[in-house]
Amino acid sequence: MAPVVERAREVRYATAAELPEAIVGADVLFAYDFFSSAIPDAWPAADALEWIHVASTGVDAILSPELRASDVVLTNSRGVFDEAIAEYVLGQVLSFAKDLPRSWELQQARRWVHRESERVAGTSALVIGTGQIGRAIARLLRAAGIRVSGSGRRARTDDPDFGTVTAQEDLHEALAGADWVVCIAPLTEATRGMLDGAAFRAMADHARLINVGRGESVVTDDLVTALREGAIAGAALDVLDTEPLPDDHPLWDLPDVRITPHNSGDFVGWRDALVRVFTDNFARWVDEEPLRDVVDTSLGYVPTDGSAR
Amino acid sequence: MAPVVERAREVRYATAAELPEAIVGADVLFAYDFFSSAIPDAWPAADALEWIHVASTGVDAILSPELRASDVVLTNSRGVFDEAIAEYVLGQVLSFAKDLPRSWELQQARRWVHRESERVAGTSALVIGTGQIGRAIARLLRAAGIRVSGSGRRARTDDPDFGTVTAQEDLHEALAGADWVVCIAPLTEATRGMLDGAAFRAMADHARLINVGRGESVVTDDLVTALREGAIAGAALDVLDTEPLPDDHPLWDLPDVRITPHNSGDFVGWRDALVRVFTDNFARWVDEEPLRDVVDTSLGYVPTDGSAR
Repeated sequence: MAPVVERAREVRYATAAELPEAIVGADVLFAYDFFSSAIPDAWPAADALEWIHVASTGVDAILSPELRASDVVLTNSRGVFDEAIAEYVLGQVLSFAKDLPRSWELQQARRWVHRESERVAGTSALVIGTGQIGRAIARLLRAAGIRVSGSGRRARTDDPDFGTVTAQEDLHEALAGADWVVCIAPLTEATRGMLDGAAFRAMADHARLINVGRGESVVTDDLVTALREGAIAGAALDVLDTEPLPDDHPLWDLPDVRITPHNSGDFVGWRDALVRVFTDNFARWVDEEPLRDVVDTSLGYVPTDGSAR
Repeated sequence: MAPVVERAREVRYATAAELPEAIVGADVLFAYDFFSSAIPDAWPAADALEWIHVASTGVDAILSPELRASDVVLTNSRGVFDEAIAEYVLGQVLSFAKDLPRSWELQQARRWVHRESERVAGTSALVIGTGQIGRAIARLLRAAGIRVSGSGRRARTDDPDFGTVTAQEDLHEALAGADWVVCIAPLTEATRGMLDGAAFRAMADHARLINVGRGESVVTDDLVTALREGAIAGAALDVLDTEPLPDDHPLWDLPDVRITPHNSGDFVGWRDALVRVFTDNFARWVDEEPLRDVVDTSLGYVPTDGSAR
């Protein structure tokens, strides 16, 4: 932890197993994402907790009913991963369009096989999730000449990054017009399982899904069926409903599926960047100023007006 | 060939072997790129030739001393491939940065191995070659947040697409500051072999080369040495000095080398686009108007002022 925190307050470090003991008397908890699920278990021992800061954007794993019902403030690390994830999404889009994985397969076989490739400019993308990361994705895809629209809570036609945003109840109609479907929605009861068989059937058969949000937004068995039946043309999945993806899962070797290990946002230096986000908020807490990036625990994310950090 | 041409003039179709007979009496020759090297052989029979249009941007294979010394006008297909090649370049940049090939290797082994990735925004690219394709590359890389400069014939600081362009005699100094080196230079006596051992030693050891110009601009043995010794970190090669790359060539399986089969510009629909470029120029020829995209045969390319087609 940064020296500025250690100078200001007593700092305890704890593993998940140590947390129920370490949390007693603690005012503030800084939690790495993978640690989030340990917190509901330690909750009964949290007798002085005022504030939890989580080193991730998604807060689904930490959002227990007890936390929702409490006065504990929850903040996230909104902004750290935005542009790295946007670059990953555009990288997967271009890799699909230019058929780069097939080129590397052919290279391994020392084969020179001319193929035509797809243009990216002029295609259309639907970004599901209009928070900060979704906005960064929208801006970068637009910069590459892709027509972008959004799917979010509230329909609107004047969004600065998306132009048109359709409401989630119109998701299937919006899916039908997209060459690329990018999911960066937070995991909530409204989004869990929203990309199911009916959604894949609504997509164009040449469309590809890129999921950089949460694996549970997708009904994975339905995705496997859609890929096998050609309902959609491919998927790049940085998140899965079970992580790591089990050894024997069919997604590993379906053609036109690209698996990455939930690292789309994890650029070199991301841990330092996460600590800086926390220490910035910690200074506000010490000074009794309002915290930034406060999660609306009833929504499950930080309501955004589109402004950058 | 398009009906508009067949209605206006007698059209003959010829293979390379048939060309010396077919070219007798012909005013105009439309040649696909791979056909270019057949033309110098047929040259003695070209008794009426006024104009050759080549379905490529590079004209190195067609530029015989006899053609240079003649009054035959040479035009190329400038503009058709620009944006597709730019997309390919950005795709390779992002694939390197996000380590996608390694993700696909791990996927084949069904392994989930978290790694950090590189940010692309804020890195620097040197584009060697400031013609139309180089400009399209510069614009797209800039749109992704990459700082771009150019290397061309004439040094300048006010280029609309590159900002700063350094002259070829300062190439090594320019190479030293680049995270990405993109070669899209035409093949001329000035550029042949310019990327040699000394050039690779001038590059940063974390830099990658992306060659979408001509393979002969690179001294391939020096590139192999530079990659083996870690003088540079990788190369994406769409062009090679021998195409197809021979089966036993060491480039096929050097780590961090990506081979594609000279198809970076060949998007779905490229052949139709090439025919449209020719028929547009053919209409000018029939009407005795000035042709577009006339190659300066002493330079070996179409001098460009940066304007798009």
